[in-house]
Amino acid sequence: MTTVDSVSKPSRLAEPDEGISEEELRLAGRNHSMPLEALHYDVTPAGMHYLLTHYDIPAIVPDSHTLIFDGLVERPMTVSLDDLKARPRRTHHVTLECAGNGRALLQPRPVSQPWLSEAVGSAEWTGTPLAPILREVGIGSDARDIVFTGADHGVEKGVEQDYQRGLPLAEALRDDVLLAYEMNGQPLLPQHGAPLRLVVPGWYGMAHVKWLTRVTVIDKEFDGYQNAIAYRVRQDADDPGVPLTRIQPRALVRPPGFPDFMSRTRVLRAGTTTVDGRAWSGHGPITSVEVTLDGGETWSPAELQEQGQPYAWRGWRWSWDAQPGRYVLGARAADATGRVQPVDASWNRGGFANNSVQRIQVAVVTD
Amino acid sequence: MTTVDSVSKPSRLAEPDEGISEEELRLAGRNHSMPLEALHYDVTPAGMHYLLTHYDIPAIVPDSHTLIFDGLVERPMTVSLDDLKARPRRTHHVTLECAGNGRALLQPRPVSQPWLSEAVGSAEWTGTPLAPILREVGIGSDARDIVFTGADHGVEKGVEQDYQRGLPLAEALRDDVLLAYEMNGQPLLPQHGAPLRLVVPGWYGMAHVKWLTRVTVIDKEFDGYQNAIAYRVRQDADDPGVPLTRIQPRALVRPPGFPDFMSRTRVLRAGTTTVDGRAWSGHGPITSVEVTLDGGETWSPAELQEQGQPYAWRGWRWSWDAQPGRYVLGARAADATGRVQPVDASWNRGGFANNSVQRIQVAVVTD
Repeated sequence: MTTVDSVSKPSRLAEPDEGISEEELRLAGRNHSMPLEALHYDVTPAGMHYLLTHYDIPAIVPDSHTLIFDGLVERPMTVSLDDLKARPRRTHHVTLECAGNGRALLQPRPVSQPWLSEAVGSAEWTGTPLAPILREVGIGSDARDIVFTGADHGVEKGVEQDYQRGLPLAEALRDDVLLAYEMNGQPLLPQHGAPLRLVVPGWYGMAHVKWLTRVTVIDKEFDGYQNAIAYRVRQDADDPGVPLTRIQPRALVRPPGFPDFMSRTRVLRAGTTTVDGRAWSGHGPITSVEVTLDGGETWSPAELQEQGQPYAWRGWRWSWDAQPGRYVLGARAADATGRVQPVDASWNRGGFANNSVQRIQVAVVTD
Repeated sequence: MTTVDSVSKPSRLAEPDEGISEEELRLAGRNHSMPLEALHYDVTPAGMHYLLTHYDIPAIVPDSHTLIFDGLVERPMTVSLDDLKARPRRTHHVTLECAGNGRALLQPRPVSQPWLSEAVGSAEWTGTPLAPILREVGIGSDARDIVFTGADHGVEKGVEQDYQRGLPLAEALRDDVLLAYEMNGQPLLPQHGAPLRLVVPGWYGMAHVKWLTRVTVIDKEFDGYQNAIAYRVRQDADDPGVPLTRIQPRALVRPPGFPDFMSRTRVLRAGTTTVDGRAWSGHGPITSVEVTLDGGETWSPAELQEQGQPYAWRGWRWSWDAQPGRYVLGARAADATGRVQPVDASWNRGGFANNSVQRIQVAVVTD
């Protein structure tokens, strides 16, 4: 008997020295990271922003799309996209990162979307604030979580589902949480949630529900798959784990010089060069970035550029008198809460929030 | 001594059962394929079109960008982007595919960008025809190839280079070859060659030089790296091989039903469903598409939709009374030249032009 749950396999860890499987490659070919040279742009151009889609990208006709507010509300409501566009309009520059960023660098490797270090992007999201609508529909006094449902449908570990995430009420009521219908001044692209998505500045990508169809107020902690099973930091399969929420600090270096096609090793002519990149944290403003040339043994402070909007990444730069030789280039960020990027990854079974320091191989040459 | 050529390793084939390496994964995370559900769109939306970048995506300021015409020409010329935009404007709907599409499915696997079957996209390219400009600059009577140089710079197998491709004169003089500055009605995105690229309808992607800076007329066959070394079909390292030119026929199925996150196996409810997809060839119009449910043992003819522009893909559909069970779904295209997609891949050392039939795992379920 062919059943829905027969298509899923149990979660697993890769064997030591097991290469990336065809399944992981299939995900990697769909769900692309941001090419690191795009760190050049303060606002990531369309098509370069990282992308993770759990199931298929739905093709939704915007004109007929509606958003339902229901659950523990006094006045359930269905609004059209035009209704939302007629409401107050806000634009926030927000850096988004996948909670699984860095997964494929862990040992042993959790088998899932095999991100290296580059599942990030920073866009200007335009929409209308969610909180005033929640107040209009009248949230019940026993409300606890708000459940956001997307139109993307699939199966995961045997559980058939529309993608759904619960967000604590206090977060959903923040002024800067948006029902977004534009990205970088253009209507949302299909793969970024067209025609409507949630934006929760500071949180990992799983919270920013795409293809949004429904907003449901409930009186308990949401126990759906993506909250209770998927996005948790756990040490083993029996560990209930801790939910993923805000983005850990990370700095990325824009690779200097030019690359070898295959190895992506960078070639740089000896001399003085400016190394730059960007850094971000969902917990607080970036307060320092340091640069390493030896894979994390020694560090030099970088110069921070002005901070833009609160949850946008922050530019930094560092002047390097590059002498011939081989280097392992990276950077580490610290934020105002005292969080600092580690050199070595801390492992967890889902492969989440690995913000260990990037390692760019650089060959400085004379010629 | 650290030298430029020290950053490249020799080309190699993967060992039997060797998983995808971190190097291949790094390329896969940058160079994304088209998610198969995007076969829904006749014109691929921005950000879903496949992308292959040999080196880094340059960040070029359009206002100061110029294109140089030189070599064996009577009147060498430098034109600005505005000059080109003031010339006759043409839009062609053209399907592009990477010559390496299907590489990662080969046994043994050539180690390079590890494409599965989806390195394709179909866009409306707007620009000005190249041929009238070539006539204006006055091509020498002994001209043979036109060399197109891009601004992307890197090293490949020890050879430092700007990306360059030679195109035979007769191809360059075709009416439909464009100097393109728009994609789908918008200025080119950085990753698609902004501000200017070549479009050679019918040819694999390597001919459509991005970030175009120079057009050089030469009196011999171009012997640069990308023509003489990289893009050739060869059986072993000593084989001089045959250059890659036009796209072999291929049909892709838009996966029906919904996916499992990890395995991408499709789940479909039993009943009548329409299976659809698109098919293309750079050699001639698509004349038939057939569908298989058993990995290529038996075939049923699909219904072709109208052919659009000559080098745009062609839609097709097939009605399936899906009974519970497991299937391996695929389609094969034939074109007017008699070329037909093979079920089994024909191997070559570079892993090029593998247009063997797609294999989509489908579980048809009741409930």
